[in-house]
Amino acid sequence: MSLKSRLAAGETLCTAWSGVPDALTVELVAQQGFDCVTLDMQHGGHHEDSVLRGLAPVLAAGKPSLVRIPVGRFDMASRALDFGAEAVIAPMVNSVEDARQFAAAMKYPPVGARSWGPTYAFPRHGQGSQQDWLRKSNERTLAFAMIETRAALDVLDGILATPGIDGIFLGPSDFSIAWTKGGTVDSTHEDMMETIADVAARAHAAGKYAAIFVVDPAVAGRVVKMGYQLLAMGSEHALIALGASVLLADVKKSIGNRQ
Amino acid sequence: MSLKSRLAAGETLCTAWSGVPDALTVELVAQQGFDCVTLDMQHGGHHEDSVLRGLAPVLAAGKPSLVRIPVGRFDMASRALDFGAEAVIAPMVNSVEDARQFAAAMKYPPVGARSWGPTYAFPRHGQGSQQDWLRKSNERTLAFAMIETRAALDVLDGILATPGIDGIFLGPSDFSIAWTKGGTVDSTHEDMMETIADVAARAHAAGKYAAIFVVDPAVAGRVVKMGYQLLAMGSEHALIALGASVLLADVKKSIGNRQ
Amino acid sequence: MSLKSRLAAGETLCTAWSGVPDALTVELVAQQGFDCVTLDMQHGGHHEDSVLRGLAPVLAAGKPSLVRIPVGRFDMASRALDFGAEAVIAPMVNSVEDARQFAAAMKYPPVGARSWGPTYAFPRHGQGSQQDWLRKSNERTLAFAMIETRAALDVLDGILATPGIDGIFLGPSDFSIAWTKGGTVDSTHEDMMETIADVAARAHAAGKYAAIFVVDPAVAGRVVKMGYQLLAMGSEHALIALGASVLLADVKKSIGNRQ
Amino acid sequence: MSLKSRLAAGETLCTAWSGVPDALTVELVAQQGFDCVTLDMQHGGHHEDSVLRGLAPVLAAGKPSLVRIPVGRFDMASRALDFGAEAVIAPMVNSVEDARQFAAAMKYPPVGARSWGPTYAFPRHGQGSQQDWLRKSNERTLAFAMIETRAALDVLDGILATPGIDGIFLGPSDFSIAWTKGGTVDSTHEDMMETIADVAARAHAAGKYAAIFVVDPAVAGRVVKMGYQLLAMGSEHALIALGASVLLADVKKSIGNRQ
Amino acid sequence: MSLKSRLAAGETLCTAWSGVPDALTVELVAQQGFDCVTLDMQHGGHHEDSVLRGLAPVLAAGKPSLVRIPVGRFDMASRALDFGAEAVIAPMVNSVEDARQFAAAMKYPPVGARSWGPTYAFPRHGQGSQQDWLRKSNERTLAFAMIETRAALDVLDGILATPGIDGIFLGPSDFSIAWTKGGTVDSTHEDMMETIADVAARAHAAGKYAAIFVVDPAVAGRVVKMGYQLLAMGSEHALIALGASVLLADVKKSIGNRQ
Amino acid sequence: MSLKSRLAAGETLCTAWSGVPDALTVELVAQQGFDCVTLDMQHGGHHEDSVLRGLAPVLAAGKPSLVRIPVGRFDMASRALDFGAEAVIAPMVNSVEDARQFAAAMKYPPVGARSWGPTYAFPRHGQGSQQDWLRKSNERTLAFAMIETRAALDVLDGILATPGIDGIFLGPSDFSIAWTKGGTVDSTHEDMMETIADVAARAHAAGKYAAIFVVDPAVAGRVVKMGYQLLAMGSEHALIALGASVLLADVKKSIGNRQ
Ligand SMILES: [Mg+2]
Ligand SMILES: [Mg+2]
Ligand SMILES: [Mg+2]
Ligand SMILES: [Mg+2]
Ligand SMILES: [Mg+2]
Ligand SMILES: [Mg+2]
Repeated sequence: MSLKSRLAAGETLCTAWSGVPDALTVELVAQQGFDCVTLDMQHGGHHEDSVLRGLAPVLAAGKPSLVRIPVGRFDMASRALDFGAEAVIAPMVNSVEDARQFAAAMKYPPVGARSWGPTYAFPRHGQGSQQDWLRKSNERTLAFAMIETRAALDVLDGILATPGIDGIFLGPSDFSIAWTKGGTVDSTHEDMMETIADVAARAHAAGKYAAIFVVDPAVAGRVVKMGYQLLAMGSEHALIALGASVLLADVKKSIGNRQ
Repeated sequence: MSLKSRLAAGETLCTAWSGVPDALTVELVAQQGFDCVTLDMQHGGHHEDSVLRGLAPVLAAGKPSLVRIPVGRFDMASRALDFGAEAVIAPMVNSVEDARQFAAAMKYPPVGARSWGPTYAFPRHGQGSQQDWLRKSNERTLAFAMIETRAALDVLDGILATPGIDGIFLGPSDFSIAWTKGGTVDSTHEDMMETIADVAARAHAAGKYAAIFVVDPAVAGRVVKMGYQLLAMGSEHALIALGASVLLADVKKSIGNRQ
Repeated sequence: MSLKSRLAAGETLCTAWSGVPDALTVELVAQQGFDCVTLDMQHGGHHEDSVLRGLAPVLAAGKPSLVRIPVGRFDMASRALDFGAEAVIAPMVNSVEDARQFAAAMKYPPVGARSWGPTYAFPRHGQGSQQDWLRKSNERTLAFAMIETRAALDVLDGILATPGIDGIFLGPSDFSIAWTKGGTVDSTHEDMMETIADVAARAHAAGKYAAIFVVDPAVAGRVVKMGYQLLAMGSEHALIALGASVLLADVKKSIGNRQ
Repeated sequence: MSLKSRLAAGETLCTAWSGVPDALTVELVAQQGFDCVTLDMQHGGHHEDSVLRGLAPVLAAGKPSLVRIPVGRFDMASRALDFGAEAVIAPMVNSVEDARQFAAAMKYPPVGARSWGPTYAFPRHGQGSQQDWLRKSNERTLAFAMIETRAALDVLDGILATPGIDGIFLGPSDFSIAWTKGGTVDSTHEDMMETIADVAARAHAAGKYAAIFVVDPAVAGRVVKMGYQLLAMGSEHALIALGASVLLADVKKSIGNRQ
Repeated sequence: MSLKSRLAAGETLCTAWSGVPDALTVELVAQQGFDCVTLDMQHGGHHEDSVLRGLAPVLAAGKPSLVRIPVGRFDMASRALDFGAEAVIAPMVNSVEDARQFAAAMKYPPVGARSWGPTYAFPRHGQGSQQDWLRKSNERTLAFAMIETRAALDVLDGILATPGIDGIFLGPSDFSIAWTKGGTVDSTHEDMMETIADVAARAHAAGKYAAIFVVDPAVAGRVVKMGYQLLAMGSEHALIALGASVLLADVKKSIGNRQ
Repeated sequence: MSLKSRLAAGETLCTAWSGVPDALTVELVAQQGFDCVTLDMQHGGHHEDSVLRGLAPVLAAGKPSLVRIPVGRFDMASRALDFGAEAVIAPMVNSVEDARQFAAAMKYPPVGARSWGPTYAFPRHGQGSQQDWLRKSNERTLAFAMIETRAALDVLDGILATPGIDGIFLGPSDFSIAWTKGGTVDSTHEDMMETIADVAARAHAAGKYAAIFVVDPAVAGRVVKMGYQLLAMGSEHALIALGASVLLADVKKSIGNRQ
């Protein structure tokens, strides 16, 4: 089942977040219990080559794949789809013009201006004719605009109304910096939580999906109640650190006070 | 402090075990709380290039680095040292001749027959003159012979007596297969535990170090009591799986019964 | 002979089209009977590293090399030339401003604003002094603007009149999507063929070269008659699929009805 | 279905032959109509890293994967299986001792001496428990010994009788060089064809599979009649050259006498 | 000590200039006597992956690292900092708007609009809390705007006055091309030297740092007197060519007239 | 002209020595004034992939290429030739059996037992038919056995008499360690110089070529007089260190006493 159809069915999904630009490492992440995998090109180390190669193990695991592009790199939004991604997350969509450019790169005419050439996506998904692929792609793929500044908040309705934008993705760390005018970074900054809930509500009202990055797992239930359906979490940095700390604690407990 | 000097001081050390041939992934592992990092070329994915590149972040983290070579690939033992490793683990050392060949590749004359050319190791460790490097290398580096078959057990004293062999490394999974004549793989197979303890005792008696792979952290205390000082654990496969399961459990607990 | 001089001499040239970002694969393509090789960064998998490395075997084969950049990535147009490409193809040049920015990245002052630094190109082509290189580069290298939308068609004369634009490159698949307002993708859509011929004619009238992608080899003669001199074809995807189908058919014919 | 079960069912299978050490190129090969894919480390460019990464797209395509190791590199036979290959082809098995060493690396005790550690193979195939994996691996995986010298021919019965050897793989080019004492390389050298047929017959008599490299597709039917069930063919070099020649011929025919 | 603090202390610093996108090659450069190392993404071969991997050996050598981004690629300015660079050099800053966009990518709010996510930088520098990192980053990192056209010169005061711009970097080759309207490339073109001195003076007057590329070492003293504190030099191309010519001259002198 | 023909013509040749496993770095080395380039897999970082890719720029520069394999890795000797090398240097050839195995891997029957499959070498050299290639390869390629221990010295005549061994390569650093029984590493250790001269003389007497590594350029004339025709020198480590020291000295001289 596609990411789109699972979201449309009302599922809550957890996506892993990969920042190591290496296909074997992505393969390990894809084998875990996450529903899908996002390759991060903004703050993570992913790049054109690692996305092209890293999407393969995600597809092989039978999971939807997402790519977060760098700020303003809408050329890469098209390429991620050509490589086989199902969804693209664009950071810092701070104006309706940003949203429009993003949508243009994501959707074929007449909705957008995406250029034809699914060189890798077509054989990787391997279904139907090229005419089918053209006809269904705009529906099948998802464009998530990141809402993470006051500027974005100010024009949220315009972004939500932009044809080709399928959902919003809330970046709580940047949002906290924006909210405090550079004063603090705190993904669960209490002052902003009501606004974060409001963003999800407005997305739903506009018929769009709401996604969010979850730094602290304890907040997951709260954001799901707000209406966020796609929860991002668990970079390799986080998973390896967590795994190592649990493992070493168990080893040290077993060894006891010998050290 | 070198691995050698820490073992000589009686410390119990935990080495991470890397099987992903990618320097950035090794960098993540090296940043965790392990005392040192082993790059595995036998069952892991490491190869010449990834060892050369992967040793750099381990050295940068100020930790000793070890390399496990493939079976019989003693050419690679020398190369691992030339790249900057402090210790090499050779699997399936099943005869005194195996031990002798391994030692020959690990030690400069007159102990062994290692060839001169520390192209990367010398600038990476960056200390003293080349004459110093030659004089001290045989002492500074460590050769661990893996004991993991009945054949090895039969000639253990000969292996321990081989000049240039600094320690043994017990492989409990292969040992259990050997012990049961192919019947089972079980790293804590009870029948063999007394023999495993005996191997460590005999290594100590011969003035050699004892190392072991710890699949189950709960067994760590037991093997430390046997005299094993260097405990290997925690491949990326294991760390990511453990981290993911803990994280997802926390997220699902927070979300509750919504899914 | 350079690509420029061969086109100026009236030759019809076939360029292979590489989408696999691997220098050894490009080497195989460069060894075939094509006149030149294009590395595709828009819909193919090529990226900065693979272009830098992949140009080498094309130069070693004594053939002109071209690079197609992603949409709007004019920084990469300059870099492709710095790496040693002779020509750059820019997709989706839909306005005179697009053409002007593309030309600026391709040509040194006073024609454009290309920045000096032919780090790899100079030693790779290895001829003359740096002053010579500066003086001749604007003539030696070729900028192809892709015409593949109705917007581009509307301002074709302006694009053709832009100093520094050496030719146009018609993208028939995107053109068919544009022509049918998203209805179909068909590189030989009959309704648009007269317009495609007209584009070549207008390019020639403006003293510019005309290039085109040829999906179906049977259409080659027709577009050559229209005035297209540079025909692109044959990605690795296409070549391997064609080679495999011919080979397997021959094998199966030999085996007969045994299977 | 596994390679083993398809051969056991009497199928004739065509394996592609990959020599380009790049996972994306292997992916293209795996998408064609071949039944399985072999990664060649002897004369092809594959190496530890490319095998580890290149097996993934073959598995993703749902096809059996084989690896040909370099001469005498039995350490790599085990590693190829640990990475997920189903079969390994060892070149220049010229003595019973060669066969025995090859089998030792391929099979777990008590048949052989393969070391435990299916780091990548286990999650990639993802089935059952580790005990199951241990119990079934010796049956599931296939060891093909290459017969390509007079020495090998002289001890063929001994090779066929070696426990753990599942089949032979005839190398007709080397065989022709051996047959003519260095005089010629000719994969269909008529003088040796009767012997080649005899090799297959003796393999079948010993209950082992027979495989062969097919340079000329026209000979496929003949070797199938001899009893060869697994036919190797079609490196990227061959596929790209064949595809390019067919494509360029079609283009030139379309263009006619213009050039 | 950070690059910022060394410049603030009035030191003159020499940065090596790396154009080979390979971490081992950067490691060699970082081991030489340069004060810091710059990875060049504009005319050099560096790209996202090589910057991420190449910064590691520079940090391991205890030296400040700089990255020059391609023209207009301000998304990459943020990424270079996220990967662990201390300073970024932006080429062709030809307007105050260019400077403003560059500063926005380099500085967190309220100075700029940099997005949060120091995935690699934080563990690589490994100091303090995330709140500390946020608070100190704008001070710790340096944004150098390249002045290398007449347009830039015309708005120099505006560029210098842009909040978040920490210094200028003079590109003498491009400046000579601009100065001579495309007539010549000459990094020590005498006519422009007074202006170059003036640029440094105005930078100092505005409280900003001045850096410059030094093609000819003999000019170093002159530019230092002008006030340039950071001198860039010595790509791998230059270092290898210089080393080879000195070495071969010595060898040939030793051999004498034999050749 | 081939390496063989230049040596046969009595030329003295300087080969650069590459230890950085990166094709772009090898390209830089190949562009300098050396007569040929050696890729070092023993103490350098080269491996299968970097040799396959690194030979391309050496061939493109029109220079002979050599590969030094790791100790005892004769499988790699064949592969280096299959990838396009003209000569292979085998370290630590300490017995006639070593020499025989090396020759077997280097020469086709009836001289040796090299297996057919010049997958990359044939198209890279691109000359004649496969029959020609088979017939001429044994003459065209060169096998250099390294003489660097007392054991090798003891059997030098036997090594020189081994069919298929074309020359010896003296390793002066290892030889000094052997000569002093591990006491010192000194490539111009005076006590051994007469023996080194004798090795060259005996090689010439046997009709074989003599090569040597030259650590100190001042000794070049002396070894040439001894009869060494092929002089190895100048790794990237050495070239970059030499270039950097000369450049920085010039810069500091220009700056004067300011620092
Ligand atoms: Mg953000
Ligand atoms: Mg084991
Ligand atoms: Mg197009
Ligand atoms: Mg063969
Ligand atoms: Mg410049
Ligand atoms: Mg040596």
